Amino acid sequence: MDFVSVIMGSKSDYEIMRHCLQALESFSIPYEVLISSAHRSPDRTKDYIKQAESKGAKVFICAAGMAAHLAGAVCAQTTKPVIGVPLSGGVLDGLDALLSTVQMPGGMPVACMAVGKAGALNAAYMAVQILAIGDKDLAEKLLADRAAKVVQIEQDSKSIEVRLPNRG
Amino acid sequence: MDFVSVIMGSKSDYEIMRHCLQALESFSIPYEVLISSAHRSPDRTKDYIKQAESKGAKVFICAAGMAAHLAGAVCAQTTKPVIGVPLSGGVLDGLDALLSTVQMPGGMPVACMAVGKAGALNAAYMAVQILAIGDKDLAEKLLADRAAKVVQIEQDSKSIEVRLPNRG
Amino acid sequence: MDFVSVIMGSKSDYEIMRHCLQALESFSIPYEVLISSAHRSPDRTKDYIKQAESKGAKVFICAAGMAAHLAGAVCAQTTKPVIGVPLSGGVLDGLDALLSTVQMPGGMPVACMAVGKAGALNAAYMAVQILAIGDKDLAEKLLADRAAKVVQIEQDSKSIEVRLPNRG
Amino acid sequence: MDFVSVIMGSKSDYEIMRHCLQALESFSIPYEVLISSAHRSPDRTKDYIKQAESKGAKVFICAAGMAAHLAGAVCAQTTKPVIGVPLSGGVLDGLDALLSTVQMPGGMPVACMAVGKAGALNAAYMAVQILAIGDKDLAEKLLADRAAKVVQIEQDSKSIEVRLPNRG
Amino acid sequence: MDFVSVIMGSKSDYEIMRHCLQALESFSIPYEVLISSAHRSPDRTKDYIKQAESKGAKVFICAAGMAAHLAGAVCAQTTKPVIGVPLSGGVLDGLDALLSTVQMPGGMPVACMAVGKAGALNAAYMAVQILAIGDKDLAEKLLADRAAKVVQIEQDSKSIEVRLPNRG
Amino acid sequence: MDFVSVIMGSKSDYEIMRHCLQALESFSIPYEVLISSAHRSPDRTKDYIKQAESKGAKVFICAAGMAAHLAGAVCAQTTKPVIGVPLSGGVLDGLDALLSTVQMPGGMPVACMAVGKAGALNAAYMAVQILAIGDKDLAEKLLADRAAKVVQIEQDSKSIEVRLPNRG
Amino acid sequence: MDFVSVIMGSKSDYEIMRHCLQALESFSIPYEVLISSAHRSPDRTKDYIKQAESKGAKVFICAAGMAAHLAGAVCAQTTKPVIGVPLSGGVLDGLDALLSTVQMPGGMPVACMAVGKAGALNAAYMAVQILAIGDKDLAEKLLADRAAKVVQIEQDSKSIEVRLPNRG
Amino acid sequence: MDFVSVIMGSKSDYEIMRHCLQALESFSIPYEVLISSAHRSPDRTKDYIKQAESKGAKVFICAAGMAAHLAGAVCAQTTKPVIGVPLSGGVLDGLDALLSTVQMPGGMPVACMAVGKAGALNAAYMAVQILAIGDKDLAEKLLADRAAKVVQIEQDSKSIEVRLPNRG
Repeated sequence: MDFVSVIMGSKSDYEIMRHCLQALESFSIPYEVLISSAHRSPDRTKDYIKQAESKGAKVFICAAGMAAHLAGAVCAQTTKPVIGVPLSGGVLDGLDALLSTVQMPGGMPVACMAVGKAGALNAAYMAVQILAIGDKDLAEKLLADRAAKVVQIEQDSKSIEVRLPNRG
Repeated sequence: MDFVSVIMGSKSDYEIMRHCLQALESFSIPYEVLISSAHRSPDRTKDYIKQAESKGAKVFICAAGMAAHLAGAVCAQTTKPVIGVPLSGGVLDGLDALLSTVQMPGGMPVACMAVGKAGALNAAYMAVQILAIGDKDLAEKLLADRAAKVVQIEQDSKSIEVRLPNRG
Repeated sequence: MDFVSVIMGSKSDYEIMRHCLQALESFSIPYEVLISSAHRSPDRTKDYIKQAESKGAKVFICAAGMAAHLAGAVCAQTTKPVIGVPLSGGVLDGLDALLSTVQMPGGMPVACMAVGKAGALNAAYMAVQILAIGDKDLAEKLLADRAAKVVQIEQDSKSIEVRLPNRG
Repeated sequence: MDFVSVIMGSKSDYEIMRHCLQALESFSIPYEVLISSAHRSPDRTKDYIKQAESKGAKVFICAAGMAAHLAGAVCAQTTKPVIGVPLSGGVLDGLDALLSTVQMPGGMPVACMAVGKAGALNAAYMAVQILAIGDKDLAEKLLADRAAKVVQIEQDSKSIEVRLPNRG
Repeated sequence: MDFVSVIMGSKSDYEIMRHCLQALESFSIPYEVLISSAHRSPDRTKDYIKQAESKGAKVFICAAGMAAHLAGAVCAQTTKPVIGVPLSGGVLDGLDALLSTVQMPGGMPVACMAVGKAGALNAAYMAVQILAIGDKDLAEKLLADRAAKVVQIEQDSKSIEVRLPNRG
Repeated sequence: MDFVSVIMGSKSDYEIMRHCLQALESFSIPYEVLISSAHRSPDRTKDYIKQAESKGAKVFICAAGMAAHLAGAVCAQTTKPVIGVPLSGGVLDGLDALLSTVQMPGGMPVACMAVGKAGALNAAYMAVQILAIGDKDLAEKLLADRAAKVVQIEQDSKSIEVRLPNRG
Repeated sequence: MDFVSVIMGSKSDYEIMRHCLQALESFSIPYEVLISSAHRSPDRTKDYIKQAESKGAKVFICAAGMAAHLAGAVCAQTTKPVIGVPLSGGVLDGLDALLSTVQMPGGMPVACMAVGKAGALNAAYMAVQILAIGDKDLAEKLLADRAAKVVQIEQDSKSIEVRLPNRG
Repeated sequence: MDFVSVIMGSKSDYEIMRHCLQALESFSIPYEVLISSAHRSPDRTKDYIKQAESKGAKVFICAAGMAAHLAGAVCAQTTKPVIGVPLSGGVLDGLDALLSTVQMPGGMPVACMAVGKAGALNAAYMAVQILAIGDKDLAEKLLADRAAKVVQIEQDSKSIEVRLPNRG
């Protein structure tokens, strides 16, 4: 069965990454969650990737902060697309993790998202968009999601007019 | 016919992006190249995306510098995966373009690569890895490419030993 | 009727941008407010600009954070002056939005203000100063506003003297 | 006679600012050029602004690097729109000058452009767009300039296709 | 009578600058405090400097945030030493104000201190050290202050030992 | 008796550095704690280092913020390994202290750790790893500590599964 | 005899610091030059400061790059004013040295100048301005220097007019 | 036989790292050099570390740029001290590599050096200082090296005096 594998570097990353998991669920995408560290449990990380691929993992999403090596370490073990979510916590508030994630050597790509919650959410969307290349139903759901966003913006715009100063 | 669409913001970006095109060719991936700007030719950009999708574009690669809006503008018009290549030229030497590319709002993901040549190369690899999910032959080529990298490193390592100081 | 068009990328930007609206009102400048996103509702944004111009919009003020493309997207659709207000929220606390706003390609200018509340306020003042080129009454109001600032500073300076340590 | 006043902090800024002057000329906008420093010749700077305004200066363009105070110092003496062009030379390669230029206190706006040549060029365009609010002919020229940009991009795009690798 | 002139850009700067005033008092240095802005009250600032010099101001201390032009504007009007205290508030949390303060053109020096409270305190010490060149009593007080610091550190060091983990 | 010497620049650093001391204790490493400043008590710092070396100090750990000179000043007085822990407090939130600590001239190395608590903890581990080169028991303890980390990660991973959305 | 003491961290700093020495000479200020390092020759640095003070040093100017500790180390040994000139060479191109120089602890001030040549020149001017507090002739020379700067700017401004495009 | 293991991420790193090797040789420290990548040859890296440890490697020195994961990946496989040398090449000119190297999770320390040549040299010195804890002869050599540095500085200082302006 095809699924998305979501790996986090530590338990504390769950608070951010649950936004990713919820988005995957909203598109009914099966997923698997693992906590494993590039540094503290390198063998566990490596072993898992091989198993996950053989079980049907099609895309990996990896979240880590500080010297954020997790996405790169996963990329080193698979040729499936790896999406990286940098997390804050380091001295540059996540920019350090972003650069640790995105600046991979030639031939070893990681698809980097924004830092934190926005990146966690968009990692799920990117995984869905990748899977939707070969799945027309999923592509339809994505278009419906876009249309819903426009409607929401129109409603927001109307709601703001009643709050304008000096009107009435 | 499935292909990758590669869009650049200006003619001067070609020197960097030809590394992307060469990598696509090394995997025999068909591609199409367009120069169009998010700001100076917004309608041309939008019209092209619709055409490209209907002709079979499966992945978009967008390269831009400064206030690098091109990948985001393309993402706004398609639900196909969009890969962004930030280019230097701005006051933060490409970090500005990187943040303009990666920090998309929720539900509108761009898969960001590193700045410049390394990013141009990896954009091609990421496109190949995405297409390889549904293409076993392409997946085999990726594994062969990885194996070749290890052989190259072993050769490099041997070549360096003869250059060590005070040896012999 | 001449007016200033104020566009924000999302509903949450209102808390900052109301300082802009209040300043416009203090100079009795008519304005229109719209929420629309460069990425999530690109067609709505484009359609609105054309309508606004034909209705009499003389200056556009655009506020956005993260990969702040809104001012640039509006600039791409009009030759009226566009003033950009970058908002915090990204990994560089608004500096990212500022650089996304200000680093436009040649021939496509955005008049960039400071990040956040100070920028929101000054966007209104810049719009007023532009409109005052052809409006003597408005120019008089601007001079009166400057004079009032000097009086306020003199009062502040006096009020601080009574708080000095060890005086008495 | 209406004109644009262009002030630079030092003689060495001319190499960048001539791109601004050429753009003003391409739209047939009269202009005046002055070298004066916010720090080394503060009285000269102040006296000039008063004279320039009375002679018909409608917009000021100010270019400076390092602790780039010139645009702010001019803004302090006039309520006409002031456009700032930050120049490189400081420890942050122009980002320092940009922040010195853009972060003005409330009620004292400077319309900031990008660092260096791109900013010098766009300062001229912003001045033209401001003057075009009340000048239909100038507004027509701006639209023609935009149309020419699209044609240029289409030509660039065609020229790049013949350079693609492995074609033919 | 010799004194130190302390100028702040706005009333809100007092909370930080009172640390400067208290340090001046601890060395019995007479001082004068003024609120005046480089941008909002440029003439007031200039007029005051001339008066202060004629009344006996020997050193100027200037505190400002954002596009921190105050120290530079004062330096432009006097050849007495000017000490700058950059304040936070801008997008780089005071680093922007620091660079606006320190990066003066050749021949126009500002003695820059650290951002915020530490800089406010050290501005007073620097003023005292300058005045102490020609004042033996003041020089003695500075040496006594240094000796007291060493005693304080010895006491702090002893106090920490009783808090060590697992001791007893 | 061999021991680790831990020096902090001020009393307020203890809250961070107690994580270092606790880690040293968990490996039963003897240590000594001193508060002394590179600037405010330079002679005390120098005298202590000579004494500590003669008493058996094998590794020095130095913690400081702002213009963090302490580790460098200690390195200048000893050829024993010096480990630096940069602390936040400066305008770059600890990155400034990190660069003050790590950028030593050739031949004068400081082993730099991350900013704050993570660096304080790892300074202790680095000291332990250095001492374990010649101490088999200590090396065993380090391996056991690593094994415990893997077990902890496995437990964390299981605990997170029960918190997944929509499961059950 | 009163003089200014100029200390550099290494021989390579002379190329920058000769601008400082030339400026001191243009005001006929006696000076002494020493190369000494805060890290590689700490005792030499300390011994020299004591000697210099007893010989009549009234102001110290210290230039260093990387983890620029020299000005701070000199400040720790004297209560005479210390002026710091940060030099490029580190990973932040001199901003690192600037922050190492300026962020001193409370009560230990260093008067920081800009990075490199501009800072080297202004260090001399700041020393002259400090010495001019008690020296009317020197104060006159400073005023003459300022007047010459204004004349130079007027000449520069005239010279640029003949280079304007399309004139004639 | 005890030795130092020096690992580089790619062949191009040799130009910088030969300064490290030369310094090791000047202290007659045996060493081994390997090129291996954390990403492109992860298994080769891991296998080598185990072999090197069993052959007598006492300290590891790892050099890498961009998303510099090599030191961290080596740290994950050994409890011997790991010294990291960040290299330039990324968008922050080596600061990115520095933060990727130094910001390790708790319990997994990397001793970070400065970026580039200075760091390469100091990595060797740090390794020597670690080995010198248990080796009196090596400790003597380090003291002699320090003494030689002081002599060199005295010579440099004398040589600069003859170059002073206006002397003679």
